[in-house]
Amino acid sequence: MTHYQPLDSDTVLDYIAEVRPQFGPSRSEEIGDGNLNLVFRVFGTQERSIIVKQALPYLRVAGEGWPLTLDRSRIEVEALTLHERLAPGLTPRIERRDDAMHLIIMEDLRDHAVWRTCLVEGRHVEGAATSVGRFCARTLLGTSDILMNAAERKSLIPIFVNPELCAITEDLVFTAPYIDAESNVLDDSSFDIHEQLKADPLLRERAAELKFVFMTRGEAVIHGDLHTGSVMAADNDTRVMDPEFAFYGPMGFDIGNLFANFAFARLRHQQLGNSAFVARIDEYEMDFWSAFAEEVRALWPADEPWRDRFLSNLLADSARMASMEMIRRLVGLARVKDLESLPLDQRSAAKQLALDGARDLALGRRVTSHEDLWNRATRREARV
Amino acid sequence: MTHYQPLDSDTVLDYIAEVRPQFGPSRSEEIGDGNLNLVFRVFGTQERSIIVKQALPYLRVAGEGWPLTLDRSRIEVEALTLHERLAPGLTPRIERRDDAMHLIIMEDLRDHAVWRTCLVEGRHVEGAATSVGRFCARTLLGTSDILMNAAERKSLIPIFVNPELCAITEDLVFTAPYIDAESNVLDDSSFDIHEQLKADPLLRERAAELKFVFMTRGEAVIHGDLHTGSVMAADNDTRVMDPEFAFYGPMGFDIGNLFANFAFARLRHQQLGNSAFVARIDEYEMDFWSAFAEEVRALWPADEPWRDRFLSNLLADSARMASMEMIRRLVGLARVKDLESLPLDQRSAAKQLALDGARDLALGRRVTSHEDLWNRATRREARV
Repeated sequence: MTHYQPLDSDTVLDYIAEVRPQFGPSRSEEIGDGNLNLVFRVFGTQERSIIVKQALPYLRVAGEGWPLTLDRSRIEVEALTLHERLAPGLTPRIERRDDAMHLIIMEDLRDHAVWRTCLVEGRHVEGAATSVGRFCARTLLGTSDILMNAAERKSLIPIFVNPELCAITEDLVFTAPYIDAESNVLDDSSFDIHEQLKADPLLRERAAELKFVFMTRGEAVIHGDLHTGSVMAADNDTRVMDPEFAFYGPMGFDIGNLFANFAFARLRHQQLGNSAFVARIDEYEMDFWSAFAEEVRALWPADEPWRDRFLSNLLADSARMASMEMIRRLVGLARVKDLESLPLDQRSAAKQLALDGARDLALGRRVTSHEDLWNRATRREARV
Repeated sequence: MTHYQPLDSDTVLDYIAEVRPQFGPSRSEEIGDGNLNLVFRVFGTQERSIIVKQALPYLRVAGEGWPLTLDRSRIEVEALTLHERLAPGLTPRIERRDDAMHLIIMEDLRDHAVWRTCLVEGRHVEGAATSVGRFCARTLLGTSDILMNAAERKSLIPIFVNPELCAITEDLVFTAPYIDAESNVLDDSSFDIHEQLKADPLLRERAAELKFVFMTRGEAVIHGDLHTGSVMAADNDTRVMDPEFAFYGPMGFDIGNLFANFAFARLRHQQLGNSAFVARIDEYEMDFWSAFAEEVRALWPADEPWRDRFLSNLLADSARMASMEMIRRLVGLARVKDLESLPLDQRSAAKQLALDGARDLALGRRVTSHEDLWNRATRREARV
């Protein structure tokens, strides 16, 4: 197939039979729950399976109303390749790319689960938080002026110019939650949250400011969508996937997204009174940041005069960015199962806590440490 | 001439005779005092004259020891063209570009003087400060996400990738002043300053942090070398020239450079006891910032939620960047006549005040207003 056409669970078998006849494709299932892509699992002989991920020419969740070019499959492959080089073993292995069909064939991580699912179910996975922290340090510092020479870094910038997917984030994260936007999805647990957002000019001002930060700070090739649903986890084997939003952006966006999504998991289990797993999530947050900071110290030449200040600035940026991720998940198009699968009363309570925490991170004093960020994001002092 | 060769004051006449025979080139003089280029004034019939500016393949002041590609003449033309479009009448007019020879033929601003020269001599030029403020607002906002749509802005990024000249700034401004670097130029007025710099780890840390800011914040196409020597001034006719350092960088670098160079002029006339011209320079600073802020308010849609915060953030960034420019001019390769032409005692005193002011801007609390920045940069409260 030399021209793009979206596959379905039948034609994906024909496709694999053509490009990898020795695989012996026998059946397939569509497993995607993303908004931008078709994702198929294709089974072959001897119980083998592979993943076929194909870009769609529109934002799926909005029907065909938000057209997109297919350039993001190129970006995803570029980013996965870069990530594999910088953080070996922490991404899914690419078996083949097909630029004409805008698809990637990847290893099937059948023994892994989406980390968010584990977090929602209260299931511990060994090593995930540490691995994600290490992944962030290696990919962020490794594509920044801190570890890469300036000319090489500058040659990467055009490769990761990603205006379309950046525009989605600019709109859905930094703009829509604060206004009456069509993309907002409101229910009984979020009408009141949205009213509070619309009535808060300081928060809207901060969101506009952070949108400018998102658009202009080309610090590193960031993942761009690094929530717990972008992580596949098995004990001691963690993979970060779906970097199609990658571009040269602020490191705090990735780190902040992780803090925000850890906070959702904690708010869930707080509501459910599951104090053992709440303690686990506190450990994850600590493991994540410790692994990140330790790896930064290992990677960075020791005589660097501003390494500690870098970490402190990054935490401050991450706190602000975490607030944006927390807020947009309450009222926006893309929700998180951590909260959405709670009963209404608990869901409403968790969302109000999330808003209060986010507001504090967005508008309150600069965070002084990762514990400070975490306490304020989760209202930990008030609620444990 | 289809292959690059550096011109001299004879061959530049042959060149003009070839490309503009009707101009009737009769004599030429080399007028460049820059470090990167040859600049000739060529006279034709009827007392006409033009400027020929040609890029050199090395950093001139360092002999042939620091090789450079000639790509910067392309960047300069691109930037001048962009500036003319965004800020009509505030740049020199380009008459011709020759990419093979890496040169530009420009109008000769014979009735203009280099603004720094006027400032050094205590000569008032009407409208210069206001025009430069307006120039900054139009070129900075006009190439930023504030006024340009994201896709168009992103298409400009590769055009203004300028690693070589950025590396000069990264080294000479943010690194060399704080260490024993070959490029430093020390004399009796600066040995002690340099010792203070080397013994100040907090300042060095801040410089490293700001270097990262310089390298990563692609807010706008900044001029990149916007000191008072890059401005040609005649009453009510101001032109900003020499944008060969242009790249997507932090707006505060341009604004900070101007504040720093205004401060040098003031420190000079403070030392000389020239209180009338000191008052003039205070006016320039006020006119510059007022014109800038007023133009920002005029250009920016009124419903923008963070316009005031933008100005406040920009002032804070500018203060930090001003400190770096102030410091590097005290001990680095490129000096300012404002201070260097003072007698030793006054020069030493002015440099110590400049260092104290810069240190306060670099490490002290966030500036609250342009007056606050100005007071602290010039030690105005202590010295008027």
